[in-house]
Amino acid sequence: MVWPMTPPQHLTLGQLNAAPPGEFIAALAEVFEYAPWVAAAVAPSRPFATVTGLHQAMMAVLQAAPREQQLAFVRGHPELGSRVARARDLTADSRFEQGSLGLDRLSEQEFARFQSLNATYHEKFGFPFIICVRRHTRDSLLARFERRLANDIEVECHTALEEIALITRLRLVAKVDGPGKPTTEGRLSTHVLDQVCGRPAADMTVALYEIGASARGLILTATTNRDGRTDAPLIAGEPLRIGCYELQFGVGDYFALRRGSWPAVSFLNVVPIRFSLSEPEGHYHVPLLVTPFSYATYRGH
Amino acid sequence: MVWPMTPPQHLTLGQLNAAPPGEFIAALAEVFEYAPWVAAAVAPSRPFATVTGLHQAMMAVLQAAPREQQLAFVRGHPELGSRVARARDLTADSRFEQGSLGLDRLSEQEFARFQSLNATYHEKFGFPFIICVRRHTRDSLLARFERRLANDIEVECHTALEEIALITRLRLVAKVDGPGKPTTEGRLSTHVLDQVCGRPAADMTVALYEIGASARGLILTATTNRDGRTDAPLIAGEPLRIGCYELQFGVGDYFALRRGSWPAVSFLNVVPIRFSLSEPEGHYHVPLLVTPFSYATYRGH
Amino acid sequence: MVWPMTPPQHLTLGQLNAAPPGEFIAALAEVFEYAPWVAAAVAPSRPFATVTGLHQAMMAVLQAAPREQQLAFVRGHPELGSRVARARDLTADSRFEQGSLGLDRLSEQEFARFQSLNATYHEKFGFPFIICVRRHTRDSLLARFERRLANDIEVECHTALEEIALITRLRLVAKVDGPGKPTTEGRLSTHVLDQVCGRPAADMTVALYEIGASARGLILTATTNRDGRTDAPLIAGEPLRIGCYELQFGVGDYFALRRGSWPAVSFLNVVPIRFSLSEPEGHYHVPLLVTPFSYATYRGH
Amino acid sequence: MVWPMTPPQHLTLGQLNAAPPGEFIAALAEVFEYAPWVAAAVAPSRPFATVTGLHQAMMAVLQAAPREQQLAFVRGHPELGSRVARARDLTADSRFEQGSLGLDRLSEQEFARFQSLNATYHEKFGFPFIICVRRHTRDSLLARFERRLANDIEVECHTALEEIALITRLRLVAKVDGPGKPTTEGRLSTHVLDQVCGRPAADMTVALYEIGASARGLILTATTNRDGRTDAPLIAGEPLRIGCYELQFGVGDYFALRRGSWPAVSFLNVVPIRFSLSEPEGHYHVPLLVTPFSYATYRGH
Repeated sequence: MVWPMTPPQHLTLGQLNAAPPGEFIAALAEVFEYAPWVAAAVAPSRPFATVTGLHQAMMAVLQAAPREQQLAFVRGHPELGSRVARARDLTADSRFEQGSLGLDRLSEQEFARFQSLNATYHEKFGFPFIICVRRHTRDSLLARFERRLANDIEVECHTALEEIALITRLRLVAKVDGPGKPTTEGRLSTHVLDQVCGRPAADMTVALYEIGASARGLILTATTNRDGRTDAPLIAGEPLRIGCYELQFGVGDYFALRRGSWPAVSFLNVVPIRFSLSEPEGHYHVPLLVTPFSYATYRGH
Repeated sequence: MVWPMTPPQHLTLGQLNAAPPGEFIAALAEVFEYAPWVAAAVAPSRPFATVTGLHQAMMAVLQAAPREQQLAFVRGHPELGSRVARARDLTADSRFEQGSLGLDRLSEQEFARFQSLNATYHEKFGFPFIICVRRHTRDSLLARFERRLANDIEVECHTALEEIALITRLRLVAKVDGPGKPTTEGRLSTHVLDQVCGRPAADMTVALYEIGASARGLILTATTNRDGRTDAPLIAGEPLRIGCYELQFGVGDYFALRRGSWPAVSFLNVVPIRFSLSEPEGHYHVPLLVTPFSYATYRGH
Repeated sequence: MVWPMTPPQHLTLGQLNAAPPGEFIAALAEVFEYAPWVAAAVAPSRPFATVTGLHQAMMAVLQAAPREQQLAFVRGHPELGSRVARARDLTADSRFEQGSLGLDRLSEQEFARFQSLNATYHEKFGFPFIICVRRHTRDSLLARFERRLANDIEVECHTALEEIALITRLRLVAKVDGPGKPTTEGRLSTHVLDQVCGRPAADMTVALYEIGASARGLILTATTNRDGRTDAPLIAGEPLRIGCYELQFGVGDYFALRRGSWPAVSFLNVVPIRFSLSEPEGHYHVPLLVTPFSYATYRGH
Repeated sequence: MVWPMTPPQHLTLGQLNAAPPGEFIAALAEVFEYAPWVAAAVAPSRPFATVTGLHQAMMAVLQAAPREQQLAFVRGHPELGSRVARARDLTADSRFEQGSLGLDRLSEQEFARFQSLNATYHEKFGFPFIICVRRHTRDSLLARFERRLANDIEVECHTALEEIALITRLRLVAKVDGPGKPTTEGRLSTHVLDQVCGRPAADMTVALYEIGASARGLILTATTNRDGRTDAPLIAGEPLRIGCYELQFGVGDYFALRRGSWPAVSFLNVVPIRFSLSEPEGHYHVPLLVTPFSYATYRGH
């Protein structure tokens, strides 16, 4: 995957603490979209001991701002999946985030669905729907969108600020290195154990799919190594997108290669394991304990 | 499903043993398609002690016939999935058998595929492709078709007679009651055990799909009873069609109704178990041992 | 095991309903020990439609009797494990019940323990400790004995009558055949599935032990048949004795005989499964799903 | 456990490579018992790049020695479990090795058994029975002893030298630090997963026993931490003793503390898992996946 963006510049917390106020504000300008006043407000409070502390201070500024200023800030965000999303006036971060979900590649029908939700939402609340896109599959995003339409304005303002906390935390972590970075990454891993010979199952193919309400999408394929694991976690280094997934293990091919006395036609061929991820920063370990005629799985960590 | 046929008339072996030769031959005329001479040849050997014995005697007549007579018999069968299959001149049994696989409802593309295989086969061997359709899904039938194209004529004649034995055995069993009927039925069943409370899982939805190479088809849905089983086996009373299947268990809904302390978002929601059936007369028991976070399955009997 | 008793005479409920009152009373005299007045009181209420109905009527007589008469009845029972238990003056049923637990074969130390509990109990309550011995292992019996010493007299009278209901129900069921017999039997069974070859594991040895606090006792050994089950349930036809048990499966020998490529030294040899039975009339199915390197078990029914 | 020995002095391979020959020989004198000539023979070949290389060189000297010198060396070893084993004239290493198995604390009966085996062995082969005691439980040691009595002298000489390789490798590793140390350590570990709540099971008691033919010995008890593991492996830092072991998990107490709706009497209380260790340098991971009514285990690594 190639994102249409320049890679983020990495700064250290030390550099930010030491920078002249103007440079500090400029460096963090895009963390809170179109709102350099947030960075400006925390500049005098430097030095920050941790990245988390810096983020909390910035969120505190936003939380303490007058409602009108909060709303102006929220209104500065692009509408989700709108034509705007394909236009020039997105910040690079917004483009990256929405692009990762395929929201800039909507079909006409899907685009219409989002347009309709956006319109209903905007009419009810007077600001665009804000959500930390990188923590969601399209299905979970749509589900949240519809559920949040039922909120009253007070709850929804609160929810929008919470989502902004999640969005800006991810942006800050991507931009600033240093001590005390908040956890923003989840992990999905697997492990295959051949219970016929009591050893890890090597050279078994594994495929990971996202299972959407209307379609499934292949995320990756891998092959188990001699430890029965994939060389890298299936997902790591980013939030897990809330949603439904399926692992498919090439059990039939694996045992066919090794069988002495196995029957010619396998009982198990492709073994699917379907599960939901609901904690974007969670660790999910989904092992497979398998013979040609049985298997077990469970949620590990 | 409604088959466009009148239900088969049931005779007893005793009635057949006692009938005048003409009636005996007429009663069994359609068992070996367009070949009343097979029934005629075994009429003097009556009485038969078992239905299996009657069938074996009829097959022995066919096996002992001159090659030309065998070929004439084989040539009397309709081509699989041909336009002929939708016409009037099929025997009722042939219509029933081919109809059960959806072969009379082929798309134009699929019809072309079968036409092409039929043509290649006919050109090579000089007779139509014979297979006991009721033991196959469309995928396994196509796989056999392609594999058998590679046979030489000697092996293929032998294979065609073996398939005729399977076809006529099913027809005879459907028509004649009596002692010593051959086994022609398979069984697929399931059982769900809730391992949180150590009891059968009642009121869980179960769906059975056929998993084809290009599509999946819902065969049935059911709900587990208080023993954690479906009231009737998932498949019984007929041969199992060789092929790939998937059971889907409504585990998330089941535990959501019963949960006290379960997390709001289920790790397991729909649990799929995919397996292949390769023995049409086999008994396959596929249980699910399940908690909200783990499950196991195995092939039972 | 040989019990020092003549086998119980079987009567039918019909015979009892039709018998002269004197014979009816005589036939049931030993069901409520030394208390023919119980049978006498229900004789006029005949005919009884079910054995359960007869038993409930007899218990109702006991429940409605004056406290002094109840206590006299309770006092008529032998002390548990006392020297009395080896003497002549036990009813045959009491000898059978206590003998089945080995309570007439106590060591001097154990005898002293029971003597001490009996004495404490008798001093506190003024009547002997009553318990339906056939529903208990020695450990569970001792645990109940100690727990019940803490009861007040009101609760303990109630408990003694409940135990008498259990004792007399078993005696009545053993003596009288007919419709509506109460359930007094439990069942323990097993099933071994070889998950390497997807079939029941035949010819595997199984041993069942009672696990006492201070010792273990072999109850039986068996060998699995071709269905992977024992020919008869491990326990059936009687109440399950509340207590701790262990099944031991000869997994190492089983796989050693069948192995092609298994390592010379087994990881699993004897596989123990330890569990408690707490429902004397329950059905406990304890299967073993096994490979040379893994196994699973669960409570089935 | 307190061993009646001073802790071994640690040298580095570098120190040995640089030492004057006399010191080198003195430092390694006890590695090959009473045979400083082995160390003397390899002294000129220094420097050794790895500890394994040093050991292989010393073994090559022994292998190349005349048979009479080999036998004299073998005869210099103490008899296993002899009274000699309690006397003064053992090397400190021999005392440590035999002591670890309890062979200096034999009962009179066991002592007689060893004496008898020793006598038979000595009579047949003319030298004492040599075995790397630290890789065996008493049962596996006795089994080897009896099996090796059936060898002919040629095979048994070879076997004795192989055991000496194992013994001296352990002694060398204990004495010398440096690159390329041979693997002499095994590992046994466990992991408990609560499949009701999909999390590691914390605060569960675990006991490890050695299961001997005639008795069982408690090796250690531990409690699982919040990862469901014991803080340290159950065995590590030494060879695993070949033999039979049992883990016992306090499953009943664990769930009793956490249960909301569990039945008052647990089906599972103490869960035993019995297995054999046959590779002293192997890694054995024996996890428990458990609910109040089911569990599974398997050999991991």
